[in-house]
Amino acid sequence: MYTGTSASPGIALGKALIYEQEELIIEKKEINSVKEETNRFDEALQISKKELKEVKQKALEELGEDKAAIFEAHLMVLDDPELINSTKSKIESENLNAEFAFKTIIDQFIQMFESMDNEYMRERAADIKDVSGRVLRHILGKTVVDLANLEEEVIVVASDLTPSDTATMNKEKVLGFLTDIGGRTSHSAIMARSLEIPAVVGLKDITKKVNNDDYVVFNGDTGEIIVNPDIETKEKYKKLKNDYENMKRELQQLIGEESISDDGRKVEIAGNIGTPNDIEGLENNDAEGVGLYRTEFLYMNRDKLPTEEEQFESYKKVLESMNPKPVVIRTLDVGGDKNLPYLELEKEMNPFLGYRAIRLCLDKKEIFITQLRALLRASKYGKLRIMFPMISSLEELLEAKEVLENVKKDLDSENIEYSNDIEIGIMIEIPAAAVMSDILAKHVDFFSIGTNDLIQYTTAVDRMNEKIHHLYSFFSPAVLKLIKMTIDNGHKEGIWVGMCGEMAGDQKLIPILLGMGLDEFSMSPISILPARRLIRSLKYEDAKRIADKVVTMGKAEDIENYMSEVLD
Amino acid sequence: MYTGTSASPGIALGKALIYEQEELIIEKKEINSVKEETNRFDEALQISKKELKEVKQKALEELGEDKAAIFEAHLMVLDDPELINSTKSKIESENLNAEFAFKTIIDQFIQMFESMDNEYMRERAADIKDVSGRVLRHILGKTVVDLANLEEEVIVVASDLTPSDTATMNKEKVLGFLTDIGGRTSHSAIMARSLEIPAVVGLKDITKKVNNDDYVVFNGDTGEIIVNPDIETKEKYKKLKNDYENMKRELQQLIGEESISDDGRKVEIAGNIGTPNDIEGLENNDAEGVGLYRTEFLYMNRDKLPTEEEQFESYKKVLESMNPKPVVIRTLDVGGDKNLPYLELEKEMNPFLGYRAIRLCLDKKEIFITQLRALLRASKYGKLRIMFPMISSLEELLEAKEVLENVKKDLDSENIEYSNDIEIGIMIEIPAAAVMSDILAKHVDFFSIGTNDLIQYTTAVDRMNEKIHHLYSFFSPAVLKLIKMTIDNGHKEGIWVGMCGEMAGDQKLIPILLGMGLDEFSMSPISILPARRLIRSLKYEDAKRIADKVVTMGKAEDIENYMSEVLD
Repeated sequence: MYTGTSASPGIALGKALIYEQEELIIEKKEINSVKEETNRFDEALQISKKELKEVKQKALEELGEDKAAIFEAHLMVLDDPELINSTKSKIESENLNAEFAFKTIIDQFIQMFESMDNEYMRERAADIKDVSGRVLRHILGKTVVDLANLEEEVIVVASDLTPSDTATMNKEKVLGFLTDIGGRTSHSAIMARSLEIPAVVGLKDITKKVNNDDYVVFNGDTGEIIVNPDIETKEKYKKLKNDYENMKRELQQLIGEESISDDGRKVEIAGNIGTPNDIEGLENNDAEGVGLYRTEFLYMNRDKLPTEEEQFESYKKVLESMNPKPVVIRTLDVGGDKNLPYLELEKEMNPFLGYRAIRLCLDKKEIFITQLRALLRASKYGKLRIMFPMISSLEELLEAKEVLENVKKDLDSENIEYSNDIEIGIMIEIPAAAVMSDILAKHVDFFSIGTNDLIQYTTAVDRMNEKIHHLYSFFSPAVLKLIKMTIDNGHKEGIWVGMCGEMAGDQKLIPILLGMGLDEFSMSPISILPARRLIRSLKYEDAKRIADKVVTMGKAEDIENYMSEVLD
Repeated sequence: MYTGTSASPGIALGKALIYEQEELIIEKKEINSVKEETNRFDEALQISKKELKEVKQKALEELGEDKAAIFEAHLMVLDDPELINSTKSKIESENLNAEFAFKTIIDQFIQMFESMDNEYMRERAADIKDVSGRVLRHILGKTVVDLANLEEEVIVVASDLTPSDTATMNKEKVLGFLTDIGGRTSHSAIMARSLEIPAVVGLKDITKKVNNDDYVVFNGDTGEIIVNPDIETKEKYKKLKNDYENMKRELQQLIGEESISDDGRKVEIAGNIGTPNDIEGLENNDAEGVGLYRTEFLYMNRDKLPTEEEQFESYKKVLESMNPKPVVIRTLDVGGDKNLPYLELEKEMNPFLGYRAIRLCLDKKEIFITQLRALLRASKYGKLRIMFPMISSLEELLEAKEVLENVKKDLDSENIEYSNDIEIGIMIEIPAAAVMSDILAKHVDFFSIGTNDLIQYTTAVDRMNEKIHHLYSFFSPAVLKLIKMTIDNGHKEGIWVGMCGEMAGDQKLIPILLGMGLDEFSMSPISILPARRLIRSLKYEDAKRIADKVVTMGKAEDIENYMSEVLD
């Protein structure tokens, strides 16, 4: 038995297929003519681009816009003048063969990204490896293998799956996948969840431990894998798979039902989305609204700011599709780990404590105004709630509201219509905002608690930093107290309080949050029906007692253990 | 009139001396022999080292150990094998003259540090410039100018003053100094404060605006400078200087008096120190104890960990000198922006939210145990209070206390004595600790609030990041609420609560903190007597009303304005 990182839930049983790209051997060679090498390089670039455009198109149709954006990013790598010119000048100045010159340049890029002790940056290195592997194969005239032509059902076992592998694979035949490297936020993991294929990643050397045609069973929830199990184990996993599928069917029966506790406390369960394409997932899972529409994707993987018109179209699409359900749209939250190269932001020592989100929008007001204009114009098409991220002071909130009022005046003077029923709210994700939520509540229509950042700042733990990961917990007693404080302060001023961080969809936390009086829970679409099922099985009065108890407890681990008992 | 950054208080009037190092012209030249160039380089290194050792000795005598450590760091730069070998191999492989090779290598280092958008790193670049300038001058056979031979009283006007400049200057003759570059934490600023010479820095182009022998008056508190003032202005500044000196004399009269409010609320005013040499400053300013002894300096500017014996000697010296006054010694707080190269810590994406302080000590227990052994052994020589930094959870506190108990057992079994009257406390500098101070208070003898970090994490603002500096305020309403919460929770459990961040010495904040019930104020030695004077002039009952009022206010600026009115 092996254990890795759970990347996508579900049970898989089947024959293993070890998927390996042939190792490329890149040698330094004498060359006949610089022109010839430059041409070989240019041709490989052209073929790679053509292929990537096809992959992107396929991804767009099957996986949605944000997944396709990965290939747009790959295409941008191939258009990067620094990369191309450095390679060509290396060919020319050192009389090198194209593959060697390109590999040398690429390796420098990859090394730079990999040397940063950060999962996100390492993933960027994986992107560059993926796209450069494609180009190198074409320079060398090798076929680029893909998983599109699978003929029988298999569990794919690979060192890593690149975005291109997952985008082109024949999903009908893939029962699950297992990889040596990657974490929960690696592309393969994200793809697996979005394709609803069970997956376990970060297994270190599973490709060496499993052979082709070995029989493999695994549990995507626990990360447990058994190779060539005995009959008993095989039966156990068949039953687990069966249970899992029954559970999924049961959850389907909750579609159309209310999210209401057994003793009548009704809440709203909404979904988090990144692009209008994600609406399908919300519909399939019967979301009662959008609790967080992250507008960053509109700004990413491109070379200039989106126009008011482009933004308007996206916002309108989401509002119209969801109407009359409410849609919380968060204004731009870039900076931190999300950079927009075309803004030419300076490198920061501590980007998470830096120039991002509302701080950037209040400084570069033209960006903010364009977004607010697009939002207001789209507001006619549904029930819009505007949310400002990273508010840390009353001053920022008042300034953001003032900008919004001025934009309204501008639209008035241009005779452009907008809804007069837009709720304005803020993210509570910085400790200062939670601590002074009594004062902030007087100036907004709602709060939405962003738990990923709130935990990070409250405990001073970068959630990406593996060395201190043990200090980052959903069950942090301090964070739970701040959540309670925020809900209480919101209710005192008569506003509703939601949560759009990952905690809102966590089964062990839902009873606590319900008991604290949380009004809206926004989560990944896949968590919505399980959350509804749990809430319908709980009594609000019991949940209140649970919430009162946990805020007196001092250790995260004790709270988590207590909640496991409660759920049992 | 020009305005810069106030770096050291006081008023200065006098003739300007423009202090410029001759611009070095480094040309690429044909060389006769690699050996000859390498020798030139080696000789310059040797002379530079010899000089630096003298400078260091002088600094040690006049400025104390931590200032001298700067030159120890410079000496280490000159012993850096990477730097030296890269230069030599550049001379050899490219047939370059020594100065050009060295300059090229040095420039790469400097560029790397300067490209980081961070004041601390830019200061490191300034260090390297300083030491490499010395070496380059020696390679070129130029005299290294210094300020040691001043013959008349002057105000020194320079682009920047290097640590070597300030260490060797004839202080008797320097009335003040003004520089184009640098901030409050630059070496020149720190030196100026420690020499009690008025200084204004960051003036951009003051060296171009002032000529030799111009008459200059300036105010180190406000950063205002007037060149060739009229008689009236000159008289005004003379009066200001007079007032300033009277005020200093008045403060001297408070030596030996209690820190007690007009209606009898007594508090403790202690000092923050970095090395045993700083004790002198505490004695001169009549500190009632040490509220924070930062032990980092013991670990910095060296190439391996300090031994138990070395630490013991330092702790003993401080405890003995202060006895019977209490000394709070903080266990090692490195990581974050304070790196120890010999620990080979990985680079982090957000070092302030990373692996530092107690997190590192609980992971590398041998380091922690050595320090605790040294502390316990030293405890016999005075009144020791041990403080753990960066506590974010009860788990960490309990683990740290367990390590301490085990160290005590070890000492018992070795028959080594230690005091049985050591108070154990924690820094409250992470929001989580403030929020759960009710629970933490049950497990410690005292809290000390670290405001620099507490503001930073509570508001998610890196205090070094200039782009968002407007969001970092001592008057943050959220931070004030957390301070009040911490004091209240501490008092409920019967423990004393202190503060060792910069806020504790701020005149506008002292009335609020007194009113909130803060028991101990620890600050730079220079702020102690002004703080005592202020507290003696206040009524505790009034301060309570002030504290109650400010925690209902929503904006930092309003609170600051209100406190200005109160002090008027």
